Amino acid sequence: MGLKLRVNPGIAALLTAVLLASTVARAEDVLPSWREGPARDAIIAFVGAVTKEGADSYVPPVERVATFDNDGTLWSEQPVYFQLLFALDRIRALAPQHPEWKDTEPFKSAISGDMEGLKAGGMDGLMKIVAASHTGVTADEFAAAARTWLGASRHPQTGKPYTEMVYQPMLELLDYLRANEFSVFIVSGGGIDFLRVFAEEVYGVAPEQVVGSTLEAHFELRDGIPVIVRDAKVSLIDDKAGKPVGIYRHIGRRPIFAAGNSDGDLQMLQYTTIPRSSADTRPRFGLIVRHTDAEREYAYDRQSAIGKLDQALDEAPRRGWLVVDMKKDWRTVYPGA
Amino acid sequence: MGLKLRVNPGIAALLTAVLLASTVARAEDVLPSWREGPARDAIIAFVGAVTKEGADSYVPPVERVATFDNDGTLWSEQPVYFQLLFALDRIRALAPQHPEWKDTEPFKSAISGDMEGLKAGGMDGLMKIVAASHTGVTADEFAAAARTWLGASRHPQTGKPYTEMVYQPMLELLDYLRANEFSVFIVSGGGIDFLRVFAEEVYGVAPEQVVGSTLEAHFELRDGIPVIVRDAKVSLIDDKAGKPVGIYRHIGRRPIFAAGNSDGDLQMLQYTTIPRSSADTRPRFGLIVRHTDAEREYAYDRQSAIGKLDQALDEAPRRGWLVVDMKKDWRTVYPGA
Repeated sequence: MGLKLRVNPGIAALLTAVLLASTVARAEDVLPSWREGPARDAIIAFVGAVTKEGADSYVPPVERVATFDNDGTLWSEQPVYFQLLFALDRIRALAPQHPEWKDTEPFKSAISGDMEGLKAGGMDGLMKIVAASHTGVTADEFAAAARTWLGASRHPQTGKPYTEMVYQPMLELLDYLRANEFSVFIVSGGGIDFLRVFAEEVYGVAPEQVVGSTLEAHFELRDGIPVIVRDAKVSLIDDKAGKPVGIYRHIGRRPIFAAGNSDGDLQMLQYTTIPRSSADTRPRFGLIVRHTDAEREYAYDRQSAIGKLDQALDEAPRRGWLVVDMKKDWRTVYPGA
Repeated sequence: MGLKLRVNPGIAALLTAVLLASTVARAEDVLPSWREGPARDAIIAFVGAVTKEGADSYVPPVERVATFDNDGTLWSEQPVYFQLLFALDRIRALAPQHPEWKDTEPFKSAISGDMEGLKAGGMDGLMKIVAASHTGVTADEFAAAARTWLGASRHPQTGKPYTEMVYQPMLELLDYLRANEFSVFIVSGGGIDFLRVFAEEVYGVAPEQVVGSTLEAHFELRDGIPVIVRDAKVSLIDDKAGKPVGIYRHIGRRPIFAAGNSDGDLQMLQYTTIPRSSADTRPRFGLIVRHTDAEREYAYDRQSAIGKLDQALDEAPRRGWLVVDMKKDWRTVYPGA
C-alpha cells in the first residue's frame, strides 16, 4: 500500500491485547455442553497442539480439514434415517399420480408405512424408493420439496422438527474448530442435496462443504431456462469405503480430524488417522459418538440395524480414537434442552 | 466477551481510516493489466453492483460464486492441452515397463510424438492414453508425478514452465473478485487431480475449490496404509453440459459470474447467466476470453481443434456476455512480461 503509519507503542500494545482477547477464549467458555473430563480435554489438547505456532505439532490453517458424518453424529438417526422418512412421505405425496403403486412393492409398503414389508424388499426395493422419490425432478424442485418437508414434519417419537434433533455439543464442536481456523465438512452417507437444504442454516456448513451420496444428473435448457435434472443412477455411495473417495473427490486433502458414530465411518476414520509412513507424525484425531443415552436420546451399537457400531468400536483403542459416551460426556443433547 | 474498552475518538477515527485504506483500493489500482476501456469497466461495474449494500443489485457474500474455466481461460492451451503433453510424457516414462506399447496404438504414436497418429485413434485412443497415464496408481503417486512434470517441463514453443503461461490479467481478476468476497472456483474439462497440484500455488484456488473431469477411485488399506487408488473409469467429464453438473455436484450453488473461452464453456455460461424466471433479476456476468493475439499468445476461434469458440461467440451478444479481446483489452498476457 505504501501507507506509512506511526503508532504509539502503548496503542500497539492495547491493540494486540484486544485482538488476543477476541480470538482466545478462556478454557471454561469452550464446549460448554461437554462435561469436564477426558473427552473434552482430549479435543481441547488436540486443537491446542495443531494451532500452536512453532511447535512440531503445528498444522497450517489451510490443512486443518475436519470431516463429520451426519446421521447419528450431528443429528439423530432413530428409529430410521430421517431422509428415509422424507422419501416415504414423498412416495405418499406422489402416489395419486401413480395409481399402480398401491398394488406394487415396494411402493405398497411405503404408502402403508409397513416397515417390515420395506425391509423384505431389501436394497433393491430401497433403490426403487430412492429413484421414485429423489429423481426425475430438477435440482430446484427437489430442494423445494425437501425444504417444505423439513419445515412441516415432526419426529414420530419426540414431536420435534428434525432440524432440532441436532446435538448441541457437536454444534459447539463445529464452532470451536471453525474458531480455530479449521475447514469443517460434512461427509455423509445421506444424500448430498438433501443435506445442503439445511446444512448452512443448521450447522453453518456451506453447500460446497457438504459431501454425500450423489446421483447422476444432467443439464438442459427447458423452455429456454437452464435446469439440472436428477437422474436415477448413482454416482457415489458416500458410505464405508466410499467416504474416503468422497473426501478425495470433493476436498482433495486428507483431513486431520474426523468424527463418526458407526461402521459406515470406519474407513473415513482410518483414512484420516493412520500415518502414511513412519515420517508422518502429524497429529490426527478420530472421534466416535457412542449412543449410550436411552433416556435423552437412544442407546444402540453392535446390534443396531441403523448406525451399527461394531468393528469401529473394536478398532478405536488400537487407533487411539476418542469414543464419546453421550450419557457421560454430554451435559445436554439437543439445543434448548 | 464482556470486555470493555475506552478508546480515544481520535484513535478510533485513525483506525477506521487505516481499515478503509486497506480494503478499498482506488479504481486505478484495480486490474492494472487490463487496459482502460469497456471490458475493464464492465467488470468493475458488475462487482460494484453486487457489493453495494442496500441496492437491489446487492448479492450476499456467500452467494458470490465465480467459476473459471482453466485451459485457454487462466492459462494457455496451444498447441494442445498441457495435460495431454503430461500424459504423453508419462507414457514415454512408463514405456520401458510396457514393451508391447512400441507396436500397439495409440501408445506407438504417443511414444514417437506422432500427433497425426494420435488423432487417427480418436476419442477411443485418447481414453487409452488417459487410462495408461492417469490410473492404476494411488492419488499420492499421481500427484507426485504431476508435480515433478510441472516442475521440470517446458513449453515447446515459449520455453517457459507451464505454470508461467498463466494470464496475468486473469490472476488479477481472481484476486479482485476474492477481495470483494467472491468464492472463486475452477471448473475445468481438465483432470481435477492434475489441477489441484498447482491451483493453490498458482491461482490461490484451494483443492476443494477445483472442479474438473473426474475418474472413479477406491479406498484400500495397502500394507496397513490408507490409500486412494485411481480407477480406469470416468466419473464425470466436466466439459460442455458436464460443467453445470460439476458445479451442482461440487458447489451446490448457481454461480453469478462465469468465465470461459470456448464452446466447452457454453453451458456453464448459460447456467450462470440465464434468468430462471422473469422475477429473477439478480445481476449475472458471463465472460469469454477471445484469443486474438498471435503475437503475444495465440489467435484462434471458430476453426480451432483445441478451444473451438463458435456457438458461444454467436450467443454472446444475445446473452450479454463480455467478449474480452486479448490483444486489445490486455496490457500484458503472461506475468513478468
